Parts: sequence; C-alpha cells; structure tokens
Amino acid sequence: MRRWPVGMIGGAPGAFMGDVHRRAMALTGSFDLVAANLSRNPKRACEAGASIGLAPERCYENWLTMARVEAQRTDGIALAVIVTPNDTHLMVASAFLEAGIPVLCEKPLTTTMEAARNFATRFSVPSPQMALAYTYSGYTMVREARRLVRNGALGALRGIQVEYLQDWLGSSESEGGWRLDKQIGGAGGCLGDIGTHAFHLAEFVSGLECTQVSARVSSLVTGHAVPDDAQIQLRFGPCVVGGLWVSQVATGCGNDLKLRIFGEKAGLEWRQEQPETLTLSTSDGHSTALSRGGRAVQMPSLLPQGHPEGYLEAFARLYADAALMLDGQEAPLLPRLNDGLRGQAFIEATLTSGAQDGVWTTISA
Amino acid sequence: MRRWPVGMIGGAPGAFMGDVHRRAMALTGSFDLVAANLSRNPKRACEAGASIGLAPERCYENWLTMARVEAQRTDGIALAVIVTPNDTHLMVASAFLEAGIPVLCEKPLTTTMEAARNFATRFSVPSPQMALAYTYSGYTMVREARRLVRNGALGALRGIQVEYLQDWLGSSESEGGWRLDKQIGGAGGCLGDIGTHAFHLAEFVSGLECTQVSARVSSLVTGHAVPDDAQIQLRFGPCVVGGLWVSQVATGCGNDLKLRIFGEKAGLEWRQEQPETLTLSTSDGHSTALSRGGRAVQMPSLLPQGHPEGYLEAFARLYADAALMLDGQEAPLLPRLNDGLRGQAFIEATLTSGAQDGVWTTISA
Amino acid sequence: MRRWPVGMIGGAPGAFMGDVHRRAMALTGSFDLVAANLSRNPKRACEAGASIGLAPERCYENWLTMARVEAQRTDGIALAVIVTPNDTHLMVASAFLEAGIPVLCEKPLTTTMEAARNFATRFSVPSPQMALAYTYSGYTMVREARRLVRNGALGALRGIQVEYLQDWLGSSESEGGWRLDKQIGGAGGCLGDIGTHAFHLAEFVSGLECTQVSARVSSLVTGHAVPDDAQIQLRFGPCVVGGLWVSQVATGCGNDLKLRIFGEKAGLEWRQEQPETLTLSTSDGHSTALSRGGRAVQMPSLLPQGHPEGYLEAFARLYADAALMLDGQEAPLLPRLNDGLRGQAFIEATLTSGAQDGVWTTISA
Amino acid sequence: MRRWPVGMIGGAPGAFMGDVHRRAMALTGSFDLVAANLSRNPKRACEAGASIGLAPERCYENWLTMARVEAQRTDGIALAVIVTPNDTHLMVASAFLEAGIPVLCEKPLTTTMEAARNFATRFSVPSPQMALAYTYSGYTMVREARRLVRNGALGALRGIQVEYLQDWLGSSESEGGWRLDKQIGGAGGCLGDIGTHAFHLAEFVSGLECTQVSARVSSLVTGHAVPDDAQIQLRFGPCVVGGLWVSQVATGCGNDLKLRIFGEKAGLEWRQEQPETLTLSTSDGHSTALSRGGRAVQMPSLLPQGHPEGYLEAFARLYADAALMLDGQEAPLLPRLNDGLRGQAFIEATLTSGAQDGVWTTISA
Repeated sequence: MRRWPVGMIGGAPGAFMGDVHRRAMALTGSFDLVAANLSRNPKRACEAGASIGLAPERCYENWLTMARVEAQRTDGIALAVIVTPNDTHLMVASAFLEAGIPVLCEKPLTTTMEAARNFATRFSVPSPQMALAYTYSGYTMVREARRLVRNGALGALRGIQVEYLQDWLGSSESEGGWRLDKQIGGAGGCLGDIGTHAFHLAEFVSGLECTQVSARVSSLVTGHAVPDDAQIQLRFGPCVVGGLWVSQVATGCGNDLKLRIFGEKAGLEWRQEQPETLTLSTSDGHSTALSRGGRAVQMPSLLPQGHPEGYLEAFARLYADAALMLDGQEAPLLPRLNDGLRGQAFIEATLTSGAQDGVWTTISA
Repeated sequence: MRRWPVGMIGGAPGAFMGDVHRRAMALTGSFDLVAANLSRNPKRACEAGASIGLAPERCYENWLTMARVEAQRTDGIALAVIVTPNDTHLMVASAFLEAGIPVLCEKPLTTTMEAARNFATRFSVPSPQMALAYTYSGYTMVREARRLVRNGALGALRGIQVEYLQDWLGSSESEGGWRLDKQIGGAGGCLGDIGTHAFHLAEFVSGLECTQVSARVSSLVTGHAVPDDAQIQLRFGPCVVGGLWVSQVATGCGNDLKLRIFGEKAGLEWRQEQPETLTLSTSDGHSTALSRGGRAVQMPSLLPQGHPEGYLEAFARLYADAALMLDGQEAPLLPRLNDGLRGQAFIEATLTSGAQDGVWTTISA
Repeated sequence: MRRWPVGMIGGAPGAFMGDVHRRAMALTGSFDLVAANLSRNPKRACEAGASIGLAPERCYENWLTMARVEAQRTDGIALAVIVTPNDTHLMVASAFLEAGIPVLCEKPLTTTMEAARNFATRFSVPSPQMALAYTYSGYTMVREARRLVRNGALGALRGIQVEYLQDWLGSSESEGGWRLDKQIGGAGGCLGDIGTHAFHLAEFVSGLECTQVSARVSSLVTGHAVPDDAQIQLRFGPCVVGGLWVSQVATGCGNDLKLRIFGEKAGLEWRQEQPETLTLSTSDGHSTALSRGGRAVQMPSLLPQGHPEGYLEAFARLYADAALMLDGQEAPLLPRLNDGLRGQAFIEATLTSGAQDGVWTTISA
Repeated sequence: MRRWPVGMIGGAPGAFMGDVHRRAMALTGSFDLVAANLSRNPKRACEAGASIGLAPERCYENWLTMARVEAQRTDGIALAVIVTPNDTHLMVASAFLEAGIPVLCEKPLTTTMEAARNFATRFSVPSPQMALAYTYSGYTMVREARRLVRNGALGALRGIQVEYLQDWLGSSESEGGWRLDKQIGGAGGCLGDIGTHAFHLAEFVSGLECTQVSARVSSLVTGHAVPDDAQIQLRFGPCVVGGLWVSQVATGCGNDLKLRIFGEKAGLEWRQEQPETLTLSTSDGHSTALSRGGRAVQMPSLLPQGHPEGYLEAFARLYADAALMLDGQEAPLLPRLNDGLRGQAFIEATLTSGAQDGVWTTISA
C-alpha cells in the first residue's frame, strides 16, 4: 500500500473543511500530510502548520512558494489539496498544476463562469490531474444507485428530483462569513455552496446531462446579499424532467440532501442523513431498502452491514479514488475538472433564469 | 344526535368514490342514505339502488327528477352528494341547489374556468350551501397543523412545499378511464384529479393565498392526452415562495401527498400515508412528532392515540362538518364553493403557464 | 348484501369500546344495531338506548330480559355484542347462547380460568357461534403476514417476539377504573387487558401454539393492585423460542403493539401504529416493505394503496367475518371460543410463573 | 496535540477488528501505530507488519518479546492494543501491564470468570491503565443519553430494555471461526461476542447496576456448540426491571443494537444503526428526536448536524478518551477493567441461569 505525500492550502485547524480533509485522508491510510500553507496570514500559516505537526520548512507562507519548492523536492508532495475560499481556488490550482503537481480542490470550481472557462481553456489539454470534492458522490449507496440506474433497474428514466436543505443561514445573525460575500463566495450563494453538490448528484446518479433550467432564485432572509433559497425546474433532454430545490434557510433542516429518480420500472430514493440505505419502489406495492455492506450491494465499502459509515467515509472514498488517479489507474467515479465546469455553468444558468422571471436557460459548460 | 337523509348522484357500487362516501357517512352516524341516482344508465341506476337497500321509489333514473321529487317530499333528502365525473358536477349541483337542497360535491369543481365562473355568478348570493370534498383537510393532524401555523408556532412563513405523487397511471395500459378524457375529466388531467387536493392543502394549512404560478406541465407516458406530471413554482404574496409537484406516473408511489411549511421559527411536515403524526423541527436539532389523540394535540378525533385513524375517518370529518352546515351552525373548516373556484383557477393558471414555457401567471378565481 | 340486526350489551355512549363496535359495524354496511342493554343501571340503559336512536321497546333494562324477548321476536337480533367489563362476559354470553343467539364478545374471555373452563364445558358441543374481539387480527397486513408464514416465506421458524406497550396507566392518578379492580377486570391486569391481544397475535400469525411460559410479573406503579408490566419467555414446541413484553406504564408509548417473527429464510415485522406495511428482511441486506392495497398483497382490503386504513377498518373486518359466521359460511380467521380459552390459559400460566420466580409453566387451555 | 506511539497485538490486515482499530486511531490524529505482533505465526506477523509500513525491528514475532523490548526503548509504545481472540486477551494484557505499558483491550475480557477474577486480583491495586473496547459507548448520542438520564430527564427509572440482533451466524455454513469455538471464544458464544456490548450499554446509560438475571439460552442453529440466541430478564435493584435479548441468528438483522429506557417522566430510545438521533417520548403524545451536532445536544462530536458520524467515529471517541488516560487526565466515560469484569460476570450468571431453567441468578463481579 503506497502512501502519498500531500500538501494543503487553506484549512487551518478550526476551519470545518480543513479538518474534514485531514480526517478523510487519515481514514484511507494512503496519504501523509507533509506540507501546507494553511492561511493567507503568513504568521498564522506557520503556527497552524506547526500545530498539526508539520516540519517547519514545509509550513509555507504562501502557495506560490509552496508550489515551486515542493515541485523541486525529491520528496515533494504528490497532491495539493485546496480548501481556500471559492475566489482563490483556480489561482491556487493553476500554480500547482503548472508546477506539475496534481490537485484535489473544493467545490465550487470558482466564482464566475468566465474564470472557469479561462481556466479550462488553459488546462484542458491534456486533461489535468485535478479532482473536485463533490463529497456526496463518495457514499457507497450513491455509487450503488448509479450502478443500478446504469444497469436498467429503473427502466427508462422519467424524472429526477433533488433537494438540499439546510437552516444554518436562517437568521439575519447567522455567521455565513465569506459564503455570503459575493466577491469571495461568488454571486451564486447557496447555489455554489450546496446547489452544485445537488446538481452533481443528479447527473452522477442518473447518468444524464441537464440541458436547461427555469429558476426562482431568492434571498429570503433580510440582509443576505446572495441567494439563500432557489427552486429550479430541470430538463434532461427531451423526455426527462426534474427539479432541484436548494435552501440554507429551511428551518429545522440540518444537511438534508435527498435524491429521487423515477423510471418506468421503479423509483429510487436516497437521503444523505441516512446514507446507509437506498430504497427502490415498484408499482405493485413493494418498497425495498438495500443496506450498505449487505451481500445484495455490489459497490464496496469499509465496514460490514449495520456498522454505520458516514460523511468521513464518503469523503475518504474520494481520496481513495484520488490515490488511483495519482497511481495512473482509472478512477471513473472521481469528480474531475469537467464536473466543476458543469457546476459553474449550472450556477450561471440558474442566476440568469432567476433574473429573467424563470425563462428557460441553457446550461453551457 | 340528529340523522340527516341523504341522496347520492353517481357512485354505483364498485365505483371507488361512491363506496368511500357511503362508508364515511356511516362512520359519522349522522346520515342515512335514502335516495340515489347511482348511474346515468336508468336500468343500472335502479338495480344499483336496490342492491344497497334503497326503497324502489327513491332509486331515480335521472338527477333532475330526483331533485324535483325529493324537494317535494316531506321526508326528502337534506343533502345531495355528487360523485359523478367532473363534467357533470355543476349541472347536478345546480339542479339540487335550485331545488333548495344543499350539496356536497366531489372535486374538482368542474372542467373549465368558464363553467366555474358562470356557476359562481349564478349561485353566489346568498352563499350556497355547498361543500367540496377536499378530503385531506379532514385529517385531524392537518387541522392541527393549520391551528399551529395560525397560532404562530412557525413564526413568519417563508416557504410552502407540497407534493402529491401516485403511480397508477404509470403505464400506457393503465385504466385511467374518464380521468384521461379531456372532455369528461377536464384538460387539467392530474392537476384536477390530485393537484387541486395539494393546492387546497397548501392554502388551508398555511392560511395564505397563492397569487401566481410558473409551471412545467407534461404528459410523460405515451398516449396520455392530458397532463400526468407537473411541477409548479408558487408565489404567496411578495415574501413567501413555494412549490407544488404532482405526478400520477411516479413509479413506486401509492398516494404520497406531503406538505412542508417553513417559517422563521420552525418547519412543519405532514405526510398523508402516515397521517397520525405531525412533525415540527427547529434549528437547534429538535424534531418533535406530535401524535393524534395525544393530550398535546388540540384538534379532536375519534380514537385514542395509537389506534390509527385513516382516510375514511378524515372523510367522515368532512361529513361531520357538513352536518353542522345543515344544522345552521358554523363549520369554518369545511371546504366550500370558494375553495372549488380557487382550485379551478389554479388548474387554469397552471395550464396557461405551462403552455407558455413557464411564464408567471396570476391565479384569478 | 344481507343486513343483520344486532343487539349490544354494555357500551353506553362515551364508553370507548361501545363506540368502536358501533362504528366498525357501520363501516361494514352489514349490521343494524336495533336493540341494547347499554348499562347495568336500568334508567341509564334506556336513556342511552334512546340517545342512539333505538326504539323504546328494544332498550332493555337487563340482559336476561333482552335475551328472552329478542329470541322470541320474529325480527329479533341475529347477534349479541358483549362489551361489558370482563367479569360479566360469560354470564351474558351464556344467556344469549342459551337463547340461540350468536355472540361477539370482548376479550379477555373472563376473569378466571375456572370460569372459562366451566363455560367451555357447557358450550363446547356443538361449537358455539361465538366470536372474540381480538381486533388486531383483523388488520389486512396481519392476515397477510399469517399467509406468508404459512406459505413458507420465512422458512422454518426460530423465534417469535411480541411487545404491547402503553403508558396510560403510568401514574398513580391514572383512571384505570374497573381494569385495575381485581374482581371485575381479573387478576391479570395488563395481561388480560392487552397481553391477550399480543398472545393471540403471536399464535395467529405464526400458526404455532405456545406451550410454556416463564414470567416476570410486576406492578411498577405504586397503588396498582394488578400487574401493569410483565415480561414473559415463550416456548413454542421444542425448537421455537419467543418473548412477550407487555406494559401499560411504558412512558411515551401510545398503543405500541409490535410483532417480529424470525425464520431460517427471512424475518418479518409488523407494527400496529403503522399497520399499512409489513416488512420482510433477508440476510443479504434486503428489507422489503409490502404496502396494503398493493398488487403484491393478496389479502383483501377496503381502500387502495396509500389511502390509510386503521383500527376501525381492522375491527370492521372481524364484523365482516362474523357476518360470514351468521350466514353459515366459513370464517377461518375469526377468533372463536378456543382463542378466548387460550388467552385465559396464558394469563393463568403467566401469573403462576411470575408468582414462582419465573418457573417454566405449561399453558393448559 | 500530542501523538502517542502505539503497538498492536493481533489484527493482521483483513481481520475486521484490526482494521477498525487502525482507522479509529487515524481519525483521532493522536496516535501512531509503530510496533506490532499482528499474528501468532511469526512469519505472518512480520509480513503483515511490513505491509502496513512498520519498521522491520518493530514487527515482533511474539508479544512477550514485544512487551519487553518496547518497554526498554526510549521511543517505546505508550499503549498496547489487544485484538487477539478472547482466550489470550489477559495473557497479553498481563505482559504489557507488567512491563508498565497501558492497554486497550477488545471485549469480552476473557473466556472464564475464574481467569477474569485472577487477573483482577493481580492488577487491581493500583487500578491498572487498562481500557476495554465497548465501542458503542463511544457514540455521542449514547453519551448524551447517559447525561440526560443522570440529569433526571426521564424521572425515576422503571425499565431498561436492550436488544442486540445479528444474523451472520444464521446458517450452519456461516463462518463463525473461533467465535464458535468454546475454548477460544468462551462458552458464552453470542453472550460474549455481542451480549457484553448490550449489557455494558444498559448499565452505562442507565447508571444502574444489574443485580440478577433469569435467562433462556439457546443454540438455535444446528451445529452451533455455543449459544447463538439468548433472552434474559434483568433486575436492577428492587424497583427497576429489564430485559436483554441477544441473537446472532435473527434473519434480516445486520447489527441491530437498540436501547430503550422508561422512566416516570419520559421514555428514551436509541438505535445503533441510526446512531445520529436519540428519541425522548412523553405521555402527552410528544416524541422528540434530538440530532447529534444540534445546539440542543451537549455532548461534543466531530462533525456538524446532518453530516453523519458512524461506527468509526464512535470508536475514535474511545481512543480520544484513552489519550486522556495516557495523559493522566480524567476519562470518566472510558470503559475500564471493572466494566470488563462485570461483562464476564454477566456471561457467567446468564449461562448458570440458562442451565437451570431460568432460575434468578446473582451477578457477582
């Protein structure tokens, strides 16, 4: 079992996503975090690096230096993990990709479609070694759902519905930080923060591309400068319809991401807050829950049935796929640059439609 | 306890809704079915009436005669229950109302907005003694939800989401009968058949009026001449948003009507297939299920907690309210003509919006 | 559809079970309540009868007169429904059976095994037309469970677990009335009131006879003169084990009757508070819920899938079976005298075992 | 954040529990696995150690050498993790404790009460630095449940019910390995393997000591030499009753550990397969689910509400407590030797009672 040296940009201890990435890496047993630029503030970056046990010479004050130096070390990092706010994702990614270092980057790709297109143009040939952290696609039962759809368990698809509901921005006093700052987080607000997860999940499991959206985009809580709730009609080609509802002000919802897909033969449901089961229902009154780890489930997992896996195990599965990417193997389920581009195009099309009273708008990645 | 003599138009034994009305009446103990015109076919009407024990002279061959004769009898019916297909609802209702006999009519009100408006103009002064069978508003926990919303348990409302999913029209071979016939069932298809239930539920519980819709309306199954699936964005005044999704081709769904309302203080969920509980969730991680019959629930019901009430008990509650109406008492929760008009306006606005690629359309009742 | 005239003994309006029986009868459309002795108090009996619309001459002041007079009328009752307290069940039943009038009696059969045996000896040949109101066996999905077990869906059985938990006697101030009076309700307390339901359910669905019990029997709430909580080990022949837990002081439980049966091939679960589904699970990670009314379910019901049936519909099914009994047809699922005897023997064996520190005790019906 | 060097005895890659311990350690970020004797087979021990990246000189061929050498190294292990089969737990633990090295040991403590008592006598003064892996006590919501019970949220307790159901030994062909070998796994079979978890959970959350048991102990599957199913009545002092049902042949159950506690004021339920919520119900019809990570929950956790934690996070919490133990801090929730002793006494008392037809037997730790 090979272990890969990793560097992290952003994600000082206390930042939610930094900790999550570190624990997910640890779960795999395939990565060692050995270098970092954990903060834009040079002093803080060094202190934070020391606090998580990094060697002083690998606690970098900025990412440009880090990319350059690590590329030159014989024991340099094999992967740069980017957990900075949205507006710097692509600057950082560019630095490492240019230095020949693969990247695993938080979503959304960036804050504007223009920036996304420019980046894609620059790095599209050859396809960059770049993974996007669409975490929820790492759940075993999400992957099993995709497999079942592909194998025809649902028959021809008719409709795809996805919801992602939170309530942590539900009051004017909520501390949304940079996520509510249009410049740093992007104009999409909840669309970028969680809507892109939902959008990726819908395409990932269904295997279909969403072509058009018609949206209602709102800021329901006074003082929010970016959208905190949106409801979007989806078209997947001529025959398949869908909906995507995203809210960060849905009081009483923690992290309620739910996917339903209906086909001619069966309907499927998966819910992130109870990720261990996947339900298939047919029109004769049968509703069958498949449990992760059971013999009836083909996608692999870490633990036996009934020993709950959760969010970190899903995240670790992306890292396991990233290890395959580094190793030159196929990792067909790992979200890549193109998935990030589609997410950005989804945000842009949704904002455009919302601003034009719901006119159907094409998603152009 | 007074018992009211009742007549029924439509609903021969074997027709789903006729049986349901008869059992719901029986549950209340306040009604006796004594007269009927159970079929358009005169011979069948008489045979069917006899089969359910009616006296021969009160098995009518058509409703006009029935209205006239019953109005003249000293022991004539006090209520006419209309369970014919949609296109004859208002003709029948007119006959009985003109004869001075109150009416309880199946939904939707009729097949076109024009017919609805003409009827309303004719009977609006004074307000007719006419109830509409929006069954789901009869569930105790739906009424409790309405009470809680009124009492401010949710705070200012933000969003209202309602779904009504079935799958019995999911294949081209399904026997939809007159419900799929545009002339008899109306152009609304699933909008009239179940969408009006969902629409009424949203307004009934929230206490708000939906002002505008933006709709995607589809016939997903080959051969369906009327819509079988629609997804509709809702506006309730300037500050409250919503969604309504209705489908009769959602494979695996039996009769899955679900309502969610989100306010500043709490979110509420009720699901018709598990009608005995109502869940309120707050942003601190509490999710509280209230059980019908428990001391914490104020709206009355028939049975103690844990002895499940279902669809027929909900239906019986409408009949209990109708008995109040007949008795000249207040029955503020009983759906009336105006609710039927709003349902018809909802169908019309949705079809209009759907035909115009989702343009926001005002609901004009 | 024949309608049978019925008389009721006990069950004045306001008494829970009297109302339930009347509504269940009404649901079937096969019975007319035409005579009653609704109270031991003659004046109250007459007033109560009048209040539910009975003719004055058929509001009886005592059951002996009622049995004699009704037996002589040409339009006399075809069924006597007994909803008195436990200690008079058999006196009343004897009067009607001797008068040639079939009986439907509340459970438990009586208050002592001696009384049960004497009654059985007197009426055993020919088998009396006597039904017992083991309500829960009337649920469609309970009957479907029995069918599946018989058909081998579970394979050879291993274990049977049944729980029946309530909390309405949970405080010393609870108004248990005659149910807590040893003379009237019997020494079994919760064993007679709800334990016999659980015991019948276990035998009804499994198709096996329980042969021995080892019990812990308690009065957990101060002041209770009869058991309010008991946990009982069960043996069903040499190879099948089981457990039965009954409590009326389990805080937070409404009417939580649950059955689980495990076989070599599958496990089965049914819960009375959500009676519309039955779940079968296998060792490969599949758990399949069957919905009442779905095509996959063979036992009949009143309403389509997704239109919830509840407690009254289950009760009505017993009455529908009783109508078969009156008509001379087979009604193999209707609980009869023998089921009542087994319930009484279960109470006696459990009390004996509990009094002897759990010694295994044979059930002798 | 201090990192502790750790050694492992047993648990070669592929063994379920070895992997689990390694991942749980990794999740904490507080431990480095640096030495091991992963197998009794010396060659395999070395190969396995190398395969997980250990230095060759710290891949030991037996645990005695390992204890001696590691105790002498200045960078020697601070904790010995014992994941061998049951019969060697105490031999290994003795070696390390005598060498001054703290121990974290799998449950059950050992295979016989005699061995447990001898060990306890030898190491009881001063209390040894020895933790037992009662994993389920590491779940946040289990700890929250304990806190709520202590704080009186349930009022005076009445009953404690715990079930632990699996089905992986459900057929004669199941590969139970040493767990079905009386010499290696102990005579308790399922009692040792999972019953001790359930027993610990009941005492841990309730805060009460179980004093007596009355048991039915069975081998339901042909060929099993040790118990695979047992049902046990519990007494917790004079006023609190309870039950414990454990099975490894309950077809359809994965790892279904469930705890219910009933008090005068409320009832509590927690289920391991859905570990993120804890439900409290009261007699007025309220049932409130508390979600891990919500502000209403006081016990800490790693991830925010709605980002599921599972089995490994629970396990990691035991390791975090073990780090406190190593650091000389208090870790009051960490299972210790005494918990292991009580588990062994529970097995012994249950086997004794089962062998004597359920006679009530005192638990003597």
